[in-house]
Amino acid sequence: MADIDLTPVARVLGLMVSGLAGVMLIPAAVDAALANPDWRAFAESAAVTGFIGGALVLATQHAAPFELSLRQAFLLTVACWLTVTAFSALPFLGLGLDYTDAFFEAISGITTTGSTVITGLDGLPPGILLWRSLLQWIGGLGIIVMAIVILPFLRVGGMQLFHTESSERSEKVVPSAFDLSVWIAVIYVLLTGFCALLYGLGEMTLFDAVNHAMATLSTGGYSTHDASFAYFQEPLTQWTGTVFMLAGALPFVVYIRFLKGERRAFWHDPQVRGLLRFLGLAVLAMAVWLWATREIAFLDALRLTAFNITSVVTTTGFASDDYSTWGPLAVAAFLAFTFVGGCTGSTSGAIKIYRHQMLWLTLRRQLLRLASPHRVVLLRYGGRAVPPDVPASVLAFIAVFMATVAVFTIALAGMGLDLETALSASAAAITNVGPGLGPIVGPAGNFASLPDAAKWILSAAMLLGRLEIFSVLILLDPQFWRS
Amino acid sequence: MADIDLTPVARVLGLMVSGLAGVMLIPAAVDAALANPDWRAFAESAAVTGFIGGALVLATQHAAPFELSLRQAFLLTVACWLTVTAFSALPFLGLGLDYTDAFFEAISGITTTGSTVITGLDGLPPGILLWRSLLQWIGGLGIIVMAIVILPFLRVGGMQLFHTESSERSEKVVPSAFDLSVWIAVIYVLLTGFCALLYGLGEMTLFDAVNHAMATLSTGGYSTHDASFAYFQEPLTQWTGTVFMLAGALPFVVYIRFLKGERRAFWHDPQVRGLLRFLGLAVLAMAVWLWATREIAFLDALRLTAFNITSVVTTTGFASDDYSTWGPLAVAAFLAFTFVGGCTGSTSGAIKIYRHQMLWLTLRRQLLRLASPHRVVLLRYGGRAVPPDVPASVLAFIAVFMATVAVFTIALAGMGLDLETALSASAAAITNVGPGLGPIVGPAGNFASLPDAAKWILSAAMLLGRLEIFSVLILLDPQFWRS
Repeated sequence: MADIDLTPVARVLGLMVSGLAGVMLIPAAVDAALANPDWRAFAESAAVTGFIGGALVLATQHAAPFELSLRQAFLLTVACWLTVTAFSALPFLGLGLDYTDAFFEAISGITTTGSTVITGLDGLPPGILLWRSLLQWIGGLGIIVMAIVILPFLRVGGMQLFHTESSERSEKVVPSAFDLSVWIAVIYVLLTGFCALLYGLGEMTLFDAVNHAMATLSTGGYSTHDASFAYFQEPLTQWTGTVFMLAGALPFVVYIRFLKGERRAFWHDPQVRGLLRFLGLAVLAMAVWLWATREIAFLDALRLTAFNITSVVTTTGFASDDYSTWGPLAVAAFLAFTFVGGCTGSTSGAIKIYRHQMLWLTLRRQLLRLASPHRVVLLRYGGRAVPPDVPASVLAFIAVFMATVAVFTIALAGMGLDLETALSASAAAITNVGPGLGPIVGPAGNFASLPDAAKWILSAAMLLGRLEIFSVLILLDPQFWRS
Repeated sequence: MADIDLTPVARVLGLMVSGLAGVMLIPAAVDAALANPDWRAFAESAAVTGFIGGALVLATQHAAPFELSLRQAFLLTVACWLTVTAFSALPFLGLGLDYTDAFFEAISGITTTGSTVITGLDGLPPGILLWRSLLQWIGGLGIIVMAIVILPFLRVGGMQLFHTESSERSEKVVPSAFDLSVWIAVIYVLLTGFCALLYGLGEMTLFDAVNHAMATLSTGGYSTHDASFAYFQEPLTQWTGTVFMLAGALPFVVYIRFLKGERRAFWHDPQVRGLLRFLGLAVLAMAVWLWATREIAFLDALRLTAFNITSVVTTTGFASDDYSTWGPLAVAAFLAFTFVGGCTGSTSGAIKIYRHQMLWLTLRRQLLRLASPHRVVLLRYGGRAVPPDVPASVLAFIAVFMATVAVFTIALAGMGLDLETALSASAAAITNVGPGLGPIVGPAGNFASLPDAAKWILSAAMLLGRLEIFSVLILLDPQFWRS
């Protein structure tokens, strides 16, 4: 450990934590303005957080934070999510939650997973509801910036595929990582605004509209109601949700390209095409099946399946209905959808579309080569040659992802959870989807009744999944800490 | 299809089918000797099978069957297992089973899966019980020969790793594929004999000993009793079963090397070491857990876990107890064990030890490379460099294996099976383990009550798994049939 200089890492952490203290003042102000005594919890949390953050910044003044080595970057990535979560949990203590529940709620928010341990959301003061939405919204922005600016350089799980792309593009379209982050933030704010507007035009109050817009664009899934999105049954509201969950799961570099005048940017992007094709097929097939097997009008079936499948595939986790009651086929299909994921460079989690596409390309190549061993098969993706190390990175990611789900399933089963609950909770946490299956962790359930150990296990799973597993595993390798 | 010459393929099929007719005469003779009218079913099946097989051989006399192209070899591999299964099903029709059940029972036997649709085994005539055991025994021998002689040349799922090995070895140790097959057969017969002897010394009758020895060495799992191995509770019998299931899951080339004088052949083989280490750890851990959480003496717990874990890991599927009643941790662990598998070049199915080892090596390399991108990391396995195309082949196999389980799970759920049943049945079929979880497909269940469509789906899953998936997928690729 001696040869990794931790000072620049600590400096960035200090800046982040100080920023977080500033964000805590927003719900404090809202609660104070509405004369709600809860503002004190936020003010106190902000004071603690700001003090520690400020101390870290002052103590590391001499460091040059923007010249990080590769190993410092890995360390910072994990430390940053953990530290911000640890402080974000503080305001939940004001609700009377213990620190386990508070940490679970915070990491579920920041990783945009959306599993909750809080019941009685409808009666909570606005500050704490806003805080949950803000955590998801900030976490969503954080993961987009990380996926576009940092991960491709760390080459995690085949992300180097987008390294070439974003660095090439950055010469053409936007000049620097900082400018890129500003572009992303502006687009993210605008999309959230549009979404809130459309929600507000429907049955939602202004407060609900703002909160749900933040949880929609971040593909997070925290709601202000225990009934989640089933609280809102107007078609306009549900279709708005469907469209903006999808908007949050599209690659944000493609928005930039579109705004820079590339009119067919969306249609030319292989991830966007793959995601839309998959969603179109899955939604249509399940709508026909619902319409044929139950007494549901086709358009209602389409709205139901579009919302709920989009919600799981984009890893949002809103539910407009308890799809676990739709029968065995739907249950198995939703469990499979949990693993799909949206596009990389979005707020979405799970395996993600480009890895499925890369698996398919590699499989096709293997089959061709089995029949004709001397054949040279070039892999092309989005019109470009795939760098030679990408297929193995992607396949290793998928295999390790499934192995991780298995390990966490066994760990949760060891806490006494039945197989369906353990497997679906483990999958839903690692993929950052949120709801699993069954009465406890299903779309109509609540994680509060789980044992504390299970909550910590799930917290670890959410973080692993959010950071694409390898960014965390590398820190567990003793080799990492040697020269 | 025009440019693949099917004549040599048809000739080999004819020879195989004719041989199968000969094997049918064994149970016919046994039933006839015991004056059991069931001998007629075997005699009739043998007549039909022998007639068609003989006709095929006669019609293809001009072909040179041992000069197969790569594509003919792939086609033959799949056609051979399908054709032999189709005819092997005939004697079951004599029991009054319909062809769906008969085919399911036959393919479950030949693929050494061991799932059964027959109840009342204890009261069946000896001929049909012997037929079930023979199917597993022949299927087991067939897969060893295929895995050692054919698959490495087809380079399926990273098997080229053993291509080098067996071809190198064959120069040193045994001169040709034919001699190799004879060696394998002799070892297989001897091991089966030893196993039957030890079973016979215990509580088993001679008939039970012979049948169970065949189902043990083939890691098949068909029993002559509805209670499966739980019918036999003597420690000697259960430990014999444990040891010989393991013997069936070791690479048969290692036996040859050992017999040729390489005294440390087993200890030097990386697969054998990996399998023993994994089994040792898993058995010990679960025995301690059973002993600590239930009122079971430690040695009894060890016998229970050794037998049942070895049974699932070697993909045999015998059960000496209904482990699905051991609690959630055991249920999740056994589902995970289902995917492990024994060594390649044995009768064992599933993912197999060397692929897990290769995944681990690749993962380690990826982590090292993430931290130090310019580092050159050579993969070594069993003291030799790993050929460059092996990691991607292995990783693609694992990813496709998991995707196949998902697809079959959804298909079975579409038949109305609940998630636990659908998932575990799909996994247990593709891995050729046999029993899944839950009342229907679990260790204490019976597949008879499943809908016909589910039986055909599971039959396809067993064949896919047995032939390492890619050998079947390649035939579904339109490119395969073009030049």
